[in-house]
Amino acid sequence: MKINSNFLNLHESYLFVKIEAMAAECQKNHPERRLIKLSIGDVTRPLAPTVVKAMKKAVEELASEETFHGYAPDKFCYGYDFLLEAIGRHYQKIFLSAGVKEQIETEEIFVSDGAKSDLGSLLDLFSKDNTVLLPDPVYPAYFDANVMDGRKIVFVSASEENGFLPLPSAKTQGELIYLCSPNNPTGAVYSREQLKTWVDFARARGAVILFDAAYEAFVKGEKPRSIFEIEGARECAIEICSFSKTAGFTGVRCGYTVVPKELRREGVSLNALFRRRQTTKFNGASYIAQRGAAAALSEQGARETALCRAYYENNAKIIMAGLKNLGFWFTGGENSPYIWGKCPKGFTSMSFFRCLLEEAGVITTPGCGFGQGGEGYFRLTSFAKTADTIEAVERLKALF
Amino acid sequence: MKINSNFLNLHESYLFVKIEAMAAECQKNHPERRLIKLSIGDVTRPLAPTVVKAMKKAVEELASEETFHGYAPDKFCYGYDFLLEAIGRHYQKIFLSAGVKEQIETEEIFVSDGAKSDLGSLLDLFSKDNTVLLPDPVYPAYFDANVMDGRKIVFVSASEENGFLPLPSAKTQGELIYLCSPNNPTGAVYSREQLKTWVDFARARGAVILFDAAYEAFVKGEKPRSIFEIEGARECAIEICSFSKTAGFTGVRCGYTVVPKELRREGVSLNALFRRRQTTKFNGASYIAQRGAAAALSEQGARETALCRAYYENNAKIIMAGLKNLGFWFTGGENSPYIWGKCPKGFTSMSFFRCLLEEAGVITTPGCGFGQGGEGYFRLTSFAKTADTIEAVERLKALF
Repeated sequence: MKINSNFLNLHESYLFVKIEAMAAECQKNHPERRLIKLSIGDVTRPLAPTVVKAMKKAVEELASEETFHGYAPDKFCYGYDFLLEAIGRHYQKIFLSAGVKEQIETEEIFVSDGAKSDLGSLLDLFSKDNTVLLPDPVYPAYFDANVMDGRKIVFVSASEENGFLPLPSAKTQGELIYLCSPNNPTGAVYSREQLKTWVDFARARGAVILFDAAYEAFVKGEKPRSIFEIEGARECAIEICSFSKTAGFTGVRCGYTVVPKELRREGVSLNALFRRRQTTKFNGASYIAQRGAAAALSEQGARETALCRAYYENNAKIIMAGLKNLGFWFTGGENSPYIWGKCPKGFTSMSFFRCLLEEAGVITTPGCGFGQGGEGYFRLTSFAKTADTIEAVERLKALF
Repeated sequence: MKINSNFLNLHESYLFVKIEAMAAECQKNHPERRLIKLSIGDVTRPLAPTVVKAMKKAVEELASEETFHGYAPDKFCYGYDFLLEAIGRHYQKIFLSAGVKEQIETEEIFVSDGAKSDLGSLLDLFSKDNTVLLPDPVYPAYFDANVMDGRKIVFVSASEENGFLPLPSAKTQGELIYLCSPNNPTGAVYSREQLKTWVDFARARGAVILFDAAYEAFVKGEKPRSIFEIEGARECAIEICSFSKTAGFTGVRCGYTVVPKELRREGVSLNALFRRRQTTKFNGASYIAQRGAAAALSEQGARETALCRAYYENNAKIIMAGLKNLGFWFTGGENSPYIWGKCPKGFTSMSFFRCLLEEAGVITTPGCGFGQGGEGYFRLTSFAKTADTIEAVERLKALF
């Protein structure tokens, strides 16, 4: 019996687990102190009333023989019609407001229990021989999942110089390209022209883009919310979406991934491959969660979830105003729940993380946890309660 | 860009998808006929009232800021304390009634969205160089998931001669051993002594047993419900469990997997590896589902779900009586929701499947879909409504 030895190349534990442990240790040492968590990207607002109503109804349906639902239908890989149609309409709205003549077909949408699962599951489709291109800094799950598969990983630097929005050059390597916009951790958002550069690059190379759009709902104005707003993307991109941040579903668990029919490599449809993967290793997202997700995309649901996001956007403004006031350099926060700040001189990511934890009782995420390129930075999220966000900013002001 | 070429070695579609398509075609050609489905193992009874109540309350909690739950806790890999404790007590009861001094610790339990996901996820832990040992016939997802990884697969024959309960011999190969008891598709259940033979074999070889206990709740009497009732199993086995059949959760989605701390290979803890895998590629089962699952394991919940299983057990009796009356050879149905029958002379699995579909309007599962060893057999399930089960049996009687 041989284990998958690639696991031995991983750091001991997933970044957020480690940070939790350090915060718990600090709390143990200072039981009187109330720690404020601006670290992990977890939401705090309750679900929208429309979503709650739909999920209660779904539970009631499961309580009666006449309306009971077992396994979700095989036909569209366990996505219910009502949710697939709602996701299709969601894309229609995005495309319409972007002036794009695109459409996402039902067979192209794969409903799941969340984006993190899909990001892991999709890797089954690709040979271990592909080189992975990751921005640096980057969401650590992209990195770790590929280390587990033993793929070669190369980086493209996201830095102040390129506004944390790296673009490919003639020297850029990689067949499996991860892009996340609005970005985690930097909050940077690609423009249409920039994404077009990536799409053209991927098409010319026969590469595939895994486009993480988990934060698309936070985009306001002109910037693209979907890679499929970009011409040619249907031939080179897969888009991974989530209800976690859009509708507060971190505890409910529902997401979806779009694999366009045109996306073929080595003569094989990746849509067909993913369908085969999902029908073998997955059995569908909860009926209750699917009903909730569809309700979140309804007109009333969209209004309610927008109100909820407005709450987080207000938090982002409070954080941004505070950092500005303190003279800290930062980016993000405009079309994103994340604010990416630069540590003051003399601090590393970790020493600044410890300083904020121990001196201010504020839990942040050290930039170095997102890769070498994150060294010297820290990430704040706008997902805390407003009162806590205000207090965290006051604590920072008192400290510096 | 290279795809994972192992996918090209798969059959075109997952067995149950193909059968659905054939049934749909038959329905299209005979729109007047009401087809009865005794094929796929999906439940039809509504959820237990205790489960419904708990899930409604969970939804309500998510509706209020004070009681909202986001991501499940990292500490035990996204399992909530209340569910982990309930699963621990469930094992205590099983072990107590078996007279076994074992205990499952909280850190050994991984809560997920279902057994099929876990069966897929666990494969990440093992090298592609391991040889997989599968019974034949077998649940096709075991086979397909390993084909996707390119592992060598060998078979051990489950046949009438060994009561569909194969045991290892000196010649038996394989480092990754799949056992399913009560078995899908044959309904056969291993005795304690038989499982001990497998455990001893695995320990002697350093192999790992993946023990699929999805149907454990259907075991009555002496036969083991958990492989951890067997001495030494903690050093060589992983157990995969589900609320799908136990509590009717096929649409709710919740399962769990036990990876004992003692299970180490090449000096590495498989518990630690699975923890690392899950924190990287998974984000927890729905809070609502976890609350429902805990309720299903409560005293009241256990009483209610037992009533529900009694309904299916009665269906199994109806089917068994019918097959006996017709003179069909069969096994299973006693401690299992599956009945495994032998096709009448002159029929192959597929010709008998088509005969039952077209002549009786009864959808079954052809044995050949579970591997070469299933040729000449058919699988019936007890999960349909009782009225439909009775009618299906009547139709068979009219036909033969």
